[in-house]
Amino acid sequence: MPNVLVLPGDGIGLEITPEAVKVLEAVLKDHPQSLKFEYGLIGGAAIDVVGKALPDATLEAAQAADAILLGSVGGPKWDTLPAPQRPELGGLLAIRKALGLFANIRPVKMLPMLVDASTLKTEVVKNVDLVVLRELTGGLYFGEKGRGTNPRSAFDNLIYTEEEIQRIVELGFQTAMKRRKKLCSVDKANVLESSRFWREITLEVAKNYPEVELTHMYVDNAAMQLVRWPEQFDVIVTENMFGDILTDLASMLMGSIGMISSASLNGSKGLYEPAHGSAPDIAGKNIANPLATILSGALMLRYSFGLEEEAQKIERAVEQVLQEGYRTADLAKPGDKVLGTREMGDAVVKALK
Amino acid sequence: MPNVLVLPGDGIGLEITPEAVKVLEAVLKDHPQSLKFEYGLIGGAAIDVVGKALPDATLEAAQAADAILLGSVGGPKWDTLPAPQRPELGGLLAIRKALGLFANIRPVKMLPMLVDASTLKTEVVKNVDLVVLRELTGGLYFGEKGRGTNPRSAFDNLIYTEEEIQRIVELGFQTAMKRRKKLCSVDKANVLESSRFWREITLEVAKNYPEVELTHMYVDNAAMQLVRWPEQFDVIVTENMFGDILTDLASMLMGSIGMISSASLNGSKGLYEPAHGSAPDIAGKNIANPLATILSGALMLRYSFGLEEEAQKIERAVEQVLQEGYRTADLAKPGDKVLGTREMGDAVVKALK
Ligand SMILES: [Mg+2]
Ligand SMILES: [Mg+2]
Repeated sequence: MPNVLVLPGDGIGLEITPEAVKVLEAVLKDHPQSLKFEYGLIGGAAIDVVGKALPDATLEAAQAADAILLGSVGGPKWDTLPAPQRPELGGLLAIRKALGLFANIRPVKMLPMLVDASTLKTEVVKNVDLVVLRELTGGLYFGEKGRGTNPRSAFDNLIYTEEEIQRIVELGFQTAMKRRKKLCSVDKANVLESSRFWREITLEVAKNYPEVELTHMYVDNAAMQLVRWPEQFDVIVTENMFGDILTDLASMLMGSIGMISSASLNGSKGLYEPAHGSAPDIAGKNIANPLATILSGALMLRYSFGLEEEAQKIERAVEQVLQEGYRTADLAKPGDKVLGTREMGDAVVKALK
Repeated sequence: MPNVLVLPGDGIGLEITPEAVKVLEAVLKDHPQSLKFEYGLIGGAAIDVVGKALPDATLEAAQAADAILLGSVGGPKWDTLPAPQRPELGGLLAIRKALGLFANIRPVKMLPMLVDASTLKTEVVKNVDLVVLRELTGGLYFGEKGRGTNPRSAFDNLIYTEEEIQRIVELGFQTAMKRRKKLCSVDKANVLESSRFWREITLEVAKNYPEVELTHMYVDNAAMQLVRWPEQFDVIVTENMFGDILTDLASMLMGSIGMISSASLNGSKGLYEPAHGSAPDIAGKNIANPLATILSGALMLRYSFGLEEEAQKIERAVEQVLQEGYRTADLAKPGDKVLGTREMGDAVVKALK
């Protein structure tokens, strides 16, 4: 039986992950494939208990697991620690790096009943259906960094190898082949050497995918185009830092990142988590929105276990609950039926039937 | 008499700069202060004639000038050149660096008659009035860059010195003091060492501006917040690459960058240019929108020559022309009176009266 390691993390992570597990268990009830759930510590919760954000036991369990479901990490309590020890860098970035999860996938698909929540005009966003693929273990965030004296200064290095670019771009083309066959590679090739290299490798990989329509876009233009005409995009592939900015920007087209799920992959091994953070201000109140984590569970079924039908069952159940007018507080408008975190999980389970 | 060096550059730059000069001459007619205009080559136009994007004569004239009015550079004709020789890197970035223009100022103010052009909902953008201050001569774009072998790789270095951060952040506080006294410093201090350094310096500089409300925001969140609630911002200050992305994103809140002006400063010495590019596809047709360049002329009067009243005269004239329903093709809706590039320049001159 495949193993899923659940890492609730901090803040609302503790409340939203149980709802996703609840939904995964419900959709696989009476199914020949079932999953075993194990639990571990990460982030601030791990710092408090074990003294480090990514305990050895957690890393070992993650390496042994077939998939990982993560809530969220971080909070003001740990913000005074040196950065490498903090929940984000020492926990989340460290586990991604240790597991070689080089590809972050973030689907952004507008649901008709949520289109009003967007700050963009309905006609601009109503048909948005795109995926941002972000390189996750290379580039500026992982390069050598440090301080200098005389003059006082600080530096970070951006470096990409051929292999790092190849594998994420390859996945970009594969993802495009399963969708509308359009790939937009985002770089800053007019200024950065690493971007020019990125573009060269992309053009090499493109030779194997003659059916995919490949375009290149500078990152500043891509940020504009996501606001100007987001429906032009099918699959976007880009490097780590550009992807960090563009995934969040693309998600905000939905009006909130409360609904955005994500997968971080290395082959079929994957870490699944909501795009939003640990929201310490609303933690422990049973008001957090668990849908992004529930949808991350659907991505897990799709990418790690090949259970496409069950993944779609979850996605349809979430749509149905929203269609019926149920919302968590973050998405609620006058007239909506507001549910708590647990109650929203229950509603999705009920809609699976 | 102060000298203004006009560098039309490429594409529509040749059509829009004469309109700005026309308006500047008109607003200063019968004024004790007058300006002398000289002309030079930059970008592709300079490559074609002199063999390099920033000719020595142009740089000397720029160094001698009190202000520079630039159109736009670049085009497909020069895209096959090695990057450092191209119009953007070899022309525009080179002149900014050579003149030490470390601060790029881009005002984004929604005009009531243009609010429909935005892809964002009217209630979200109707009161947008912000300024993005971007560091322009340091960071990743100017750091050491190169290729590696075994494995094949490419790198760019991001480095900031204390002085580089101090002077731009200082200008951020000064700009905020003249406006609504709110400064948002954008960084990625949860991951980058250069950003943590940026934040430290910002906190030091802040001690001299107790009246300014200072906030810090991560760049990915800033990109989201510009779409979610842009009216929250007064002055944004950030490093070069983040600024490259955020200035364009903020400008797109207006629905087009056709109206966005910018100033690049080193003290009172400034280079003024529209935010848009050289648009080779529409060049030579007398249909380009000259208003961003005309508004850049207003910024020149404000920042280089201290002529605040005349700057506002130009800004009011542009508003009046738009109010009367005149538009260039890029902004036109059914019912608008469409003007060509030259005719729009004439209309602004007329509205000055
Ligand atoms: Mg992000
Ligand atoms: Mg830009």
